[in-house]
Amino acid sequence: MIIIGEKINSSNKKVASALEKRDTEYIQKLAKNQAEAGADYIDVNAGIFGEQEAELLTWLVRTVQSSVQKPCCIDSPNPDALEKALEVHQGRAMINSITGVKESRQKLIPLVKHHEAKVIALCIGEGGIPETADDRVRIGGSIIDDLENEGIPLQNIYIDPLVQPIATNPSSARIALEVIENIMNRYPGIHTVCGISNISYGLPSRRAINAAFLTMALAKGLDTAILNPCDPLMLSSLLASEALTGRDSYGLKYIAAFRKGKIK
Amino acid sequence: MIIIGEKINSSNKKVASALEKRDTEYIQKLAKNQAEAGADYIDVNAGIFGEQEAELLTWLVRTVQSSVQKPCCIDSPNPDALEKALEVHQGRAMINSITGVKESRQKLIPLVKHHEAKVIALCIGEGGIPETADDRVRIGGSIIDDLENEGIPLQNIYIDPLVQPIATNPSSARIALEVIENIMNRYPGIHTVCGISNISYGLPSRRAINAAFLTMALAKGLDTAILNPCDPLMLSSLLASEALTGRDSYGLKYIAAFRKGKIK
Repeated sequence: MIIIGEKINSSNKKVASALEKRDTEYIQKLAKNQAEAGADYIDVNAGIFGEQEAELLTWLVRTVQSSVQKPCCIDSPNPDALEKALEVHQGRAMINSITGVKESRQKLIPLVKHHEAKVIALCIGEGGIPETADDRVRIGGSIIDDLENEGIPLQNIYIDPLVQPIATNPSSARIALEVIENIMNRYPGIHTVCGISNISYGLPSRRAINAAFLTMALAKGLDTAILNPCDPLMLSSLLASEALTGRDSYGLKYIAAFRKGKIK
Repeated sequence: MIIIGEKINSSNKKVASALEKRDTEYIQKLAKNQAEAGADYIDVNAGIFGEQEAELLTWLVRTVQSSVQKPCCIDSPNPDALEKALEVHQGRAMINSITGVKESRQKLIPLVKHHEAKVIALCIGEGGIPETADDRVRIGGSIIDDLENEGIPLQNIYIDPLVQPIATNPSSARIALEVIENIMNRYPGIHTVCGISNISYGLPSRRAINAAFLTMALAKGLDTAILNPCDPLMLSSLLASEALTGRDSYGLKYIAAFRKGKIK
């Protein structure tokens, strides 16, 4: 499982405050903790800051990468902010995200190509988020076709089925799981990715829901997840699920994590 | 999910000791704790006691049922022990278990019929436990045919795919999950059941593996599980998984459990 650490997100009040103050220490601690817990990418988001977003995103990339040797997942739909952040990024970044909307494709595909970035593609079309799994797979497929036609290899594409809260739609987990299974079966070599915690929005004790959803998604083939790797329940569930699906044969990685005190 | 509480099993040293001493208080406490935690059936097992098994199983049924108003899941392959235990059982018992072996079917089907019991059927044939999911489904199907021909309704049949440890075979979770999905699709109205904790035998920190396996099995349609309902991680995972699969629409049961302090 490729882990994208979700914690440096301006929708979190403490992160927003750290951004306002350019609190290098706070941001670098979040980056380090996530990297130590197993994050492969550090998500950086300054979305709430409007006109300042490009500047803050650039600052975040620099601040994170001067403390951990990890690539960032640069989290913005704004082509200008993405472009500036990509210019200062060391190594191969991930962009979060492109959609099936024409304007998004036209502006972001050149950036993805120029920086040979990895890219998260949301199953959103011109008409918004489709209700059915089939429609999401169709939109996902059309974005994949576009990206491949532009020479972007499948292994750099991460399809996000879009995870909506079960508190507002009891079918939303089933829909996301169906999209994951379908995309993974149809496009061998591609990746799928989810923002795991979106599923539990509006419910109490969200950690148990998040952990169970990660387990179900991993069983359907999900290979990348945006999550909090510092949550021991999440990490235990992830490692247990890898042992159960045979990705971690005989549980050897699980046993090693247990010996390091990582399994709760 | 129908929960069969697994704790009163003579393979546990404390339970074996309580059985030797006919320790009513100890056994009744295990029964009560499991019933309060949500068990629908209380499994009773005296398998290690050989010739004394029938007597002890009978004592267990009486002891459990004089403390909780729950049916027992009478856990023995021994027809004589099952018969004596069934004679003292109040209400509709579950028998754990019949197999595809001819002798097992011939001796146990009359008991199931006479007591109108529910019955767990293991996917074991004359040649032992089949390696592949397909062969297990085939044996399960042949037991179902036999039971139905004897007038036992599908809703009283619980197919157990047999859960073997992932520590000895990395495919064993996949095989069990495939059998569950297949049986639930082919025989609408039937039940499937697993001994959840068998999956983690030989690994450290078994609870995380058990909880993740329960989540995966529930997502495949499993509707009955033999487990420890007093483990808060297991119960949280179960309730979270029911909310995710839409069995608990809008997470209403999950929220109620959270308010009672049952979700960790």
